[in-house]
Amino acid sequence: MRRRAFLQTGMAAGIAGATGLGSTPSHIRTTPITAEGPLRLSSNENALGLSPAARRAVIDGIPEANRYPGAKRRELVAALAAKHGVARESIVLGCGSTEVLQVMVQASATRRCALVTANPTFEDVFDYGIPETYRVERVPLDANMAHDIDRMRDLAALSWDPVLVYICNPNNPTGTLTACSDVDSWIEDAPANIRFMIDEAYFEYVDDDGYWSAIKWIEQRPNVVVARTFSKIYGMAGMRLGYGIAHPDTAAHIRRFMCQVNANELALRAALASLEDGGLVGRSLDANTRAKQVVYSCLEELDLEYLPTQTNFVMHRINGDLRTYRERMREHDVWVGRPFPPMLSYNRLSFGLPEEMERFTEVLREFRTKGWV
Amino acid sequence: MRRRAFLQTGMAAGIAGATGLGSTPSHIRTTPITAEGPLRLSSNENALGLSPAARRAVIDGIPEANRYPGAKRRELVAALAAKHGVARESIVLGCGSTEVLQVMVQASATRRCALVTANPTFEDVFDYGIPETYRVERVPLDANMAHDIDRMRDLAALSWDPVLVYICNPNNPTGTLTACSDVDSWIEDAPANIRFMIDEAYFEYVDDDGYWSAIKWIEQRPNVVVARTFSKIYGMAGMRLGYGIAHPDTAAHIRRFMCQVNANELALRAALASLEDGGLVGRSLDANTRAKQVVYSCLEELDLEYLPTQTNFVMHRINGDLRTYRERMREHDVWVGRPFPPMLSYNRLSFGLPEEMERFTEVLREFRTKGWV
Repeated sequence: MRRRAFLQTGMAAGIAGATGLGSTPSHIRTTPITAEGPLRLSSNENALGLSPAARRAVIDGIPEANRYPGAKRRELVAALAAKHGVARESIVLGCGSTEVLQVMVQASATRRCALVTANPTFEDVFDYGIPETYRVERVPLDANMAHDIDRMRDLAALSWDPVLVYICNPNNPTGTLTACSDVDSWIEDAPANIRFMIDEAYFEYVDDDGYWSAIKWIEQRPNVVVARTFSKIYGMAGMRLGYGIAHPDTAAHIRRFMCQVNANELALRAALASLEDGGLVGRSLDANTRAKQVVYSCLEELDLEYLPTQTNFVMHRINGDLRTYRERMREHDVWVGRPFPPMLSYNRLSFGLPEEMERFTEVLREFRTKGWV
Repeated sequence: MRRRAFLQTGMAAGIAGATGLGSTPSHIRTTPITAEGPLRLSSNENALGLSPAARRAVIDGIPEANRYPGAKRRELVAALAAKHGVARESIVLGCGSTEVLQVMVQASATRRCALVTANPTFEDVFDYGIPETYRVERVPLDANMAHDIDRMRDLAALSWDPVLVYICNPNNPTGTLTACSDVDSWIEDAPANIRFMIDEAYFEYVDDDGYWSAIKWIEQRPNVVVARTFSKIYGMAGMRLGYGIAHPDTAAHIRRFMCQVNANELALRAALASLEDGGLVGRSLDANTRAKQVVYSCLEELDLEYLPTQTNFVMHRINGDLRTYRERMREHDVWVGRPFPPMLSYNRLSFGLPEEMERFTEVLREFRTKGWV
């Protein structure tokens, strides 16, 4: 499937010429192709790959890849500011949104601060050296698999010291939403010692009237930072580019902790081209919807409970031990999720292309015939 | 010149085909070409650009740029470990060596620590949020423009708290060496509270018997970290890739503060290809030596004192005000250095291609006829 998609861009022949590697087949042989390699359904990537416009932009940028990024960095900041209707000073580029999350954690660290998150949620905020200076409070998701905003509020209200609140919405690994009206009312009432880090990595995938961006807060509330990424809907996970949106004062503070000149020249160019590619988001959404339908049908057929998702992945029951399930999938050349305790009777399945999900469901049905799920 | 160099790779036509942009001229028009744009002699970049092998590797990697880097990251770590004869666990990849320096600063921060550096030296270690928790001690270079190791030692010895020592060798912006025997004897005697950050960004350019790498220390001394980069001799500044080399325990500590998954997939591939390109270092050195001779001849002819350099840049007198000099150069489409106080009667000039330096010297001679230098 990947090979076909790649060939459809009409670039393979030209690239083979450009690389001097000779014929197209020899180029294809040196490139991992999903249809020939394992099915990679473990990391919430976008199987469509870089958009054709982004691929062209990368190639065009090669003669500039020996120069420290400057002009394209400014261009991307301006484009993002225009896209979101905020000041340029509100945009902080990161090496993935991961760097934005990391830096928020670092920039808020004090001896007595707390980090309040859902459980389970995306782990990156725990993954840095500084969290050992935090008191970490993990609040279980509520019955609807949303952030338990009431409990998180109560916990945060106990502290006069800085409290960093991480809200991943939609939440990874559950794919579920937290009502933005609940988040809004907390932000509205919260004192300044409570700092909100709203992770909207999967923003574009959401189709729900109760969901909107927290960007609307950043002008009035310097204690709100929103993280976005080019890794998901834009298919650029390998390019490592994300950004934070915050009040200019907050952005300036965060920026002082960022890696200087963090974004790669080719990533900047790919991002600019992706933003200008008006069809990209629609294509990604369409492929994702079709992939989701293939998976939902199979899970329903096999009576495997799943959490309806607002993202490019789904959490579903596996009727057994996650470790064994993952190993067996790997033996069938399918890479799936990772453990998200305490949900160890579920697997987080990323959506590949619809055709890839057909292949996945064949394997899952085979597992059922063997009594493995 | 850049256009010629680019065309010489034989890739322009193929790339134009690959991008679907049509004929070569239209592609060339969209790409900044030094010969048509300003002469960029301000950022110590390598004007040769990415090696042809690295360019091919970038193009080959595009179909993988939607995946989080994994295999290539491990491959590059293994290649660097083999190159330097150290354990894989000793290698820490960074978003440029800048990230390694930044993280060392962050990972060593305590309420009472000191940061001891030369003056002037490379500024990146001062550029993060955490240095405000440091007591910064800048020790002027000695009469030979080397780090004044004796004074730095004396200062560091006053503290029982952590002392982070930054030694940029050869030093940026002076291009001068500090005798490695002096650095060695300090490292040999230093207590564990003194942590050495040895920046060897320009290592490959040095031609001096008194110079060697500090990598030899990392096994026995967990308080030594060496930083290297792909930005200079490898011509990859825009790709943002560098690395630290340290004792496995130190590397593990540093890694906890790094941005997770920091290196871009295409950068990893370009780095691997560059390491495998046996001729790359020689080509870069050759171009640099020829460029240096062009500049030295002109500076001597104009009787403008310069510091003989062991790098891809040179610090030279300008007989006047640096700000005015830089502005006038910019009016002549030449970008040169930035202020490095207290050396404000000098300019830091980066070496471009030899032909580019011919163009620069024409401008400099014109300045002399006008009485500007």
